[in-house]
Formats: sequence, structure tokens, C-alpha cells
Amino acid sequence: MPLQKQVSTKTDSPSSPDQHFQVLSDSKNSPARRGRVTTTHGSIETPAFMTVGTAGSVKGMTPEDLKTLGAEIILSNAYHLYLRPGHQFIEKKGGLHQFMAWDRPILTDSGGYQIFSLNDLSKITEEGVAFQSHIDGSRHFVSPEKAIEIEAALGADIIMAFDECLEYPADYKRASDSLQRTLRWASRSKSAHHREDQFLYGIIQGGCYPDLRKQGIEGLLNLGFDGYAVGGLSVGEPQEKMLKVLEQVVPFMPADKPRYLMGVGRPQDLVEAVSRGIDLFDCVLPTRHARTGSLFTSRGELHIKNARYKDDDLPIDPDCHCYTCSHFSRAYLRHLFISKELLALRLNTLHNLYYYLSLMFKLRKAIEQHSLEKFRQDFYKTHNMGI
Amino acid sequence: MPLQKQVSTKTDSPSSPDQHFQVLSDSKNSPARRGRVTTTHGSIETPAFMTVGTAGSVKGMTPEDLKTLGAEIILSNAYHLYLRPGHQFIEKKGGLHQFMAWDRPILTDSGGYQIFSLNDLSKITEEGVAFQSHIDGSRHFVSPEKAIEIEAALGADIIMAFDECLEYPADYKRASDSLQRTLRWASRSKSAHHREDQFLYGIIQGGCYPDLRKQGIEGLLNLGFDGYAVGGLSVGEPQEKMLKVLEQVVPFMPADKPRYLMGVGRPQDLVEAVSRGIDLFDCVLPTRHARTGSLFTSRGELHIKNARYKDDDLPIDPDCHCYTCSHFSRAYLRHLFISKELLALRLNTLHNLYYYLSLMFKLRKAIEQHSLEKFRQDFYKTHNMGI
Repeated sequence: MPLQKQVSTKTDSPSSPDQHFQVLSDSKNSPARRGRVTTTHGSIETPAFMTVGTAGSVKGMTPEDLKTLGAEIILSNAYHLYLRPGHQFIEKKGGLHQFMAWDRPILTDSGGYQIFSLNDLSKITEEGVAFQSHIDGSRHFVSPEKAIEIEAALGADIIMAFDECLEYPADYKRASDSLQRTLRWASRSKSAHHREDQFLYGIIQGGCYPDLRKQGIEGLLNLGFDGYAVGGLSVGEPQEKMLKVLEQVVPFMPADKPRYLMGVGRPQDLVEAVSRGIDLFDCVLPTRHARTGSLFTSRGELHIKNARYKDDDLPIDPDCHCYTCSHFSRAYLRHLFISKELLALRLNTLHNLYYYLSLMFKLRKAIEQHSLEKFRQDFYKTHNMGI
Repeated sequence: MPLQKQVSTKTDSPSSPDQHFQVLSDSKNSPARRGRVTTTHGSIETPAFMTVGTAGSVKGMTPEDLKTLGAEIILSNAYHLYLRPGHQFIEKKGGLHQFMAWDRPILTDSGGYQIFSLNDLSKITEEGVAFQSHIDGSRHFVSPEKAIEIEAALGADIIMAFDECLEYPADYKRASDSLQRTLRWASRSKSAHHREDQFLYGIIQGGCYPDLRKQGIEGLLNLGFDGYAVGGLSVGEPQEKMLKVLEQVVPFMPADKPRYLMGVGRPQDLVEAVSRGIDLFDCVLPTRHARTGSLFTSRGELHIKNARYKDDDLPIDPDCHCYTCSHFSRAYLRHLFISKELLALRLNTLHNLYYYLSLMFKLRKAIEQHSLEKFRQDFYKTHNMGI
């Protein structure tokens, strides 16, 4: 049964407030929408960026820091927490929220992506994936049922079905086989899912092949999930290809469920994907780049260790209102970074997360005010100016 | 002219509020006193512990963090800042306060200690010390005049005379020669000092030899300084020897000037030295130990990576009210430390600094309430209990 594009006309009817997802405002000339995701631990205004806290902490940030920055949800990795300290251990500690003292929503991925990307020797069968720990070489086996068991124990508000993350590039046969397996695993993930306080999202795979992506969303819709994620992107393909996939797949994603683009991305990727109807994002870029001294600004990225900032009295971004930009010069931040001072990592991370979260804030405002296209144009005008 | 012990009777008369140092309250049965040091950037309640910010930042802590912890003054190292980014550079940036966005008092040491401890190849002459940078091997020469020039450029509120820091153990001849040179350098430091908004402290050397220590303070008093520091301790000698030196030298230190014990120390060292009349301390222990997972508690030190804390739901110290202890279990903190998460360093540092600063707060209260001896006994009763 091929899906009809009119699935997306569901946005025409107002959402009910007791739903997991409400569309608060549609865009006039684009699939973008302003929404709200509701969970047991609170709600998330969308489009939203989820800060990554791989091993049960966002690197260097306390929960208080994250709240001050306005973070409404974080993402944590089931793979890492399963290996260390263990999902049963965290369950015994009252769940991940209590363990890490974060009382707002959490999303956990299912571990699929890490199993494939961190392990050269993982072995896939219909049953699941055998792999060795990247920490101590110990052997493990994760199936869809096991992944859901791990995520149930961690206790996140939103959990992901177990999928096979396809490498890029992949030929049609390989992409198709992988997609069929992902769909069978999605079905098993759904059957294994029992915690009523957790929302389960399915993941659309299918590489860069439009008909496979369509099969992907179709298969998931037949099963029925609380949200739908586009997976297998941001794995090395050019931005153009990624956006093409979104343009093909989003119209088939139900309008009354959150749409999540996994592992994306750069500021310009967020702007483009929001314009194409995506509601949720996660990416390590702001935190990881902070630690290598790469700082996001309204005029593009700035590499703080560059000698040109040695004597520079300006803040990272004169248009930024974050704590770092309100107090410190590029010259000081460069000194800290060159001197390998811990404070460099903290101040850089505070700035980059503020940049990402305030970009999402501005995108939400632009959708509400029906000025997204103008925002997009202004974004590129300054973004391409250079520092 | 040998000094008379009655120098210390100056505490009997109330201090004038426009002085650099006021004694607010004396102890009945000990040389301990409750005081206030006043500088251009604000005042410091004493006895006080100065958190160390070696290269222009307290590792991992923003100025806002330090203020939340109640830090009233920090210490920064002239040696490190002279080498990188350079004292003239910091002067051009408006001085250290502005460069690092810390608007409360700063004390800089003169660099003597680092020149000797970080350089195997330093060469000392009457004129000063030639050494190679521990960063890039470049050659430098620092004299007393140069040290004061560096400290004037950095712009700290309290600056230290240039001294030779004697190794431990040192024989009498070596200790005596070194002391005489330190006194000649103290005289040159004083002559080179011209900034009226900076208070200059002299450093008493003399190793563990009572008559040399007495010569040390006597020589400095003849020159006249705004405060007096006991240097050359905490260099490997047992606590007993350190306390003996304090008992010998403090009675000869003027009661109307701050008494600063450099580079000390452990919590029990602070309790003992305060009881012997010391007003100011600095030490890297709380920040450095935090980074190696060694945490101070009312019952002694706790090594968070120890397997016994793997499943421990208690906070680091159940009697502590810091942010870390209010939110996180030992089990979580151990997980972060084992996983090499940046947040471990931050939470550990917050806790250790809170411990030190609240210990000083309690010592000040105890002096005010004339209950220092009781506080001291209670301190050891719990401190020696073990975790």
C-alpha cells in the first residue's frame, strides 16, 4: 500500500494537548512547523536541538549549566551506558534522570549507530549484532529486544528502535537488504516495548535511494510509532544529498508526529532541515568543536588558536549574549586554549551550546512570525561574511 | 637590633579602618585572630584561603563559579604569566583583573618558587636568576627589579618580593647564605616598588633554623612591608617542623600586618597554622587533588575511583552543602571519573574548593566565638574517623 502525500494534511487540524506532539503553528510557504513535544519530564518546544550527553553527562556541563542555557532535552547513548556503568546498574540507581540529576526530558538512541561506527569487528545476523566493547574488548550481543530492554532500564522519555546504520556510499542491493532488516528489527523493537511512560520512535533507513526511503517510512507507519526519525544521514554524504532525502521522505512522514533528523548537524544543516519540516536534531558538533577550539559565530566558525586572535579584544561573536562573550576576549580565550587550561573547554562549550540553542530559538520565532525564508536569507548573508 | 616579642601586643589596640589590615577579633588563648585585608578591589575576611589560578584561570572555574563559592581573593603566578602570554601583553589588555574578568582581589607571587621548582638548570647570581622556560626552553633572567616590574604590569592588589626558595633539607651555611641574599633581594624589591595601589609583602626565609628565621623577619621589618609571608615551608618537611617554625617566627611578626603562610596546605595544616596566628594561605591541593579524584571531606580524604564507591548512593560528604554533594552520588561521580568525563573535574573541583572555603569560614566563626580550641578538637575527632 503506497502512502499518499496527503498524510501531511493532518497539520490542518489542531492537535490535542494530551498528545505527545502538538503542532502550534504551520509555515505558510514551507513544511516547517512550530511544535511542542510532551513527555513525563516536561515539554520541549520544537524545532529543538538536543545536546549530546554520551556517557551520562554533557561534557563539562552541570545540569544547572544546561538549564541556564535553556536546554529542554538531552540525548544520551544507550551503547555507552550499557557498557559502562551498565543499564541494570543505572536502573538500580533510579534511572538515568536520577543518576545524572537531570529532571528534564532525555532521549536515548538504541546503540545501533555506535555498534557500527565504533567497532570494526561487529558481526550482523538476523538475530542482532555481535561486537566487542571499545573499552575493554569484552564480547556482547545486542538484538532489538535487548536494545529496548537497555533503553527501558535507562528510563529515558523517548527511546529509539534498533536499526542498522548503513554506511555511505552503499549500493542499492546492500541498502535494500539493510532496510528490510531494519524494518523487521523495528517490528521486534515495537513488540519488545512495554513501558508506557516511554515514547518509541522508529528510524527510516534506505540510504540515498528515494524508493527505499519511501519503503522505509511506509513500513514504519504500518507498525505505528510515537515519532519518526530519519537515520543514516550525516554519514559522509554531501549536504545536497541529505536535503534531497529530506525533501523526498518528509512529505510521507505523518504531520502529527515529531520528525527527528538523527546526528545532524552544522548550523546551515539545521536551518535547511527545519525549512524542510524537521522538528528534532542532535549532534556532537557544538560540544566536540568546543573542545578543539572551533567556535560557532553568526559569521561562520572561528578557530580560537589561530594567531590572528592573539591580540584581539573582541568577544568570540560581538552579536552573542552568552556568558563567555559577555566576559572574555578572544585574546584571553586563545591564551586559555594555548595554555591547555580546563576553563577553555568550559567557556568554549558554554558558547557553542548557546549558539546552537539560540539558533533554534530564532528558528522557532521565525516560523511563528511566518518569516522563516527571510531568516534563512539573513542567516546566509551574515554566515558567509567570514569573521 | 633583636626584636622584642611585644611587637605582637599591637593587637591590643583596635586597628584603623583605612589600614590595609584590621584585626577584628583576637583569640583569648591563642595567637589566632579574625581580621580583614582591604585592597582596591575589595576586602578579604581572614583567616582566608586563596584559590590558585596559575595561568590566569582557576582550573575549570569561571569567575562566577568562584564568587558563588565565596572566594574573595585568588592567587596567580607571575612566573607562568610572564612566560605566557607575557606581563606586558596583560598590561596592554588592562591588567590581569580585566584580562581574566575577575574584579575581586588578586595576589601574585614573584615567580621565585616556580623558577627553582620547575627548572633544573636555573643559575643563581647576586644579580638574579637565569633560567630556561619549561614551555619552550627559551632563556630568561629575572632579578628582584624585574620581578616587581612583572608584578606591576600584571596589576595584582598584593604582590610578593622576589626571594630564593630554599630546598629541604638544607644545611645551616646554605640556609644562611640564601637568607642573606633573600634579604638583599627584599631590599631591592622594595626599592623597585612604585605602584601605590599594590601592597608589597616580604618573605621570611631561613629554613628550619630558628635564629635564621628570626634574622629573616628582623631584616624585613627593618625594610618595612605591607604584609609578611613565611616562605620555604611545605617543601617536604614534616608538619611538626613546619609548625615549630611558625611558633618561633609568628611572635616576631607584627600584629597589625597580615601574616601569610605560602603554599600551605592540607586542611589539618590550615587548622594548626590559623591556631598559630596565620591569616592567609594558598595551595594547589584542592584544585589539583580534584583532578586526580581525591576529595576532601569532614572525615578525611576520599579517593573517588576506589571500587568501594561503585555502588555508593551517598554524596561525597553527607555533611557538605556544596552543589556537587547536593545533587550527585559517589557512584555517579566515580562513573564520571572512570569514564574520563570532563564533568568529573568540574564537580570535584567545586566540591574541594567549597570544602576549603567553608573550612576557613568555620575557622573565622570559631575565632569570633572564642571556640577555636573546641573547633580544633571536633575537627580531629571527625577528621580521623575515616570515610
